[in-house]
Amino acid sequence: MKTITSRDNPLYKELKHLATSSQARRKAGRTLLDGVHLSQAWLDMRGAPLQCIVSESALANPEVAGIVMRCENQHAHVTALPDALYNAVSQVEHGVGLMFLIETPASELPASLTVNAVLLDNVQDPGNVGSILRSAAAAGITQVFCSSGTAFCWSPKVLRAAMGAHFVVEIYENVDLASLIAPSKIAVIATSGYATQRVYDADLRQPVAWVFGHEGQGVADDLLSMATQQVVIPHLGQVESLNVAACAAVCFFEQVRQIQA
Amino acid sequence: MKTITSRDNPLYKELKHLATSSQARRKAGRTLLDGVHLSQAWLDMRGAPLQCIVSESALANPEVAGIVMRCENQHAHVTALPDALYNAVSQVEHGVGLMFLIETPASELPASLTVNAVLLDNVQDPGNVGSILRSAAAAGITQVFCSSGTAFCWSPKVLRAAMGAHFVVEIYENVDLASLIAPSKIAVIATSGYATQRVYDADLRQPVAWVFGHEGQGVADDLLSMATQQVVIPHLGQVESLNVAACAAVCFFEQVRQIQA
Repeated sequence: MKTITSRDNPLYKELKHLATSSQARRKAGRTLLDGVHLSQAWLDMRGAPLQCIVSESALANPEVAGIVMRCENQHAHVTALPDALYNAVSQVEHGVGLMFLIETPASELPASLTVNAVLLDNVQDPGNVGSILRSAAAAGITQVFCSSGTAFCWSPKVLRAAMGAHFVVEIYENVDLASLIAPSKIAVIATSGYATQRVYDADLRQPVAWVFGHEGQGVADDLLSMATQQVVIPHLGQVESLNVAACAAVCFFEQVRQIQA
Repeated sequence: MKTITSRDNPLYKELKHLATSSQARRKAGRTLLDGVHLSQAWLDMRGAPLQCIVSESALANPEVAGIVMRCENQHAHVTALPDALYNAVSQVEHGVGLMFLIETPASELPASLTVNAVLLDNVQDPGNVGSILRSAAAAGITQVFCSSGTAFCWSPKVLRAAMGAHFVVEIYENVDLASLIAPSKIAVIATSGYATQRVYDADLRQPVAWVFGHEGQGVADDLLSMATQQVVIPHLGQVESLNVAACAAVCFFEQVRQIQA
């Protein structure tokens, strides 16, 4: 374990940069995972981080000490920071004092849609994107494609909301969704409040690419018109629509129900 | 329409107090609705506000002007603020410059559970509580009971996430959930990752009181043991759990599916 005591240390400067700038994270292809849960999930699913960063006082926490030991056993770099330096980097209030520096996983875009997938068209809110990733992972969906207008998946807020789902699904960002839908071999199903077919009546026992859209405007018209089917979640109340992450969960688990039926 | 130009005006002081303090909102039994959507929903569902507050520049916005006119037609008080004063009160960045001051609706606690209801035990995150209210309203559920540890429903974040659902469901806060469950005449169903019965296999064609719990710990053990049934949402992936708002949406719309089947 190394200790950094100077704010001029290059690694410290990199951490500070990544912690505060979404652009820096995108450009470097690196991000920070904050806290025990995400770090543990990374170790379980993806192995060693580039760096395990701990505050000096966090070393007394048995959970943190356990993760540090796992990192050292895998010959990962572990760096301790005095609490004042650590706190100046952490974006989490009352955090546990542990973060991983990782390389953002990047996969080559598949040639076509062949397995259960989610396509996010301009979904703005990081909490919604994170919740959708989490629900998708729980429903066994393994591919998520995001348009350039969708919230950056490797931001701290999305990571926190997804609770480790990032590490079990393949995430593709800045994707031209129309080019992906056009040659699709599987059903592409978009949700729309104006559709007449209920999601319960669609046959979901085959692979499906689900399309969800902007919180206010929904799925863009050009993508809607390219979809194989449009479905609606029927409402019994006076409220006009569902939150997009709630809508996605209903669709994914209706598919799980049909698969298990 | 009146205009306030002094920060010492009593109404202005009240607005500032309500805008910045959750405790003040609880104590006064009043809250602020920010923006066109919530204000419109209030007018549609509940009628005139105590006060309609607009920034002077917002009066040029046709949507805002339309709402001001509806308020005046209903003899509600409309107060204009110079932009500088308005912005010092608004908690929303780049807001439209419109808010309603309202009396927080309060209903007497029903003697027992008789219709579809949601019970929230220590749900912490305002976004989750808002999303659950919104899904409940869309699924036709009309009663929501919150334990004292659950996020305050009339806070700006919960209001924003629920998109007007507050005005079509009855919300009861600081409720002793155990006292409500014990004499229940209807099925009380709690979700738990350890349950063996799938939500799809529960008979949901009768009224149900759904119980959802804390984001980390789930439903408290004493409430779990009092529930008529415990159900699980089956997972096909490697992720341990769903976000509580996603979980609620799946349950509510499985009930809608069964009712419509």
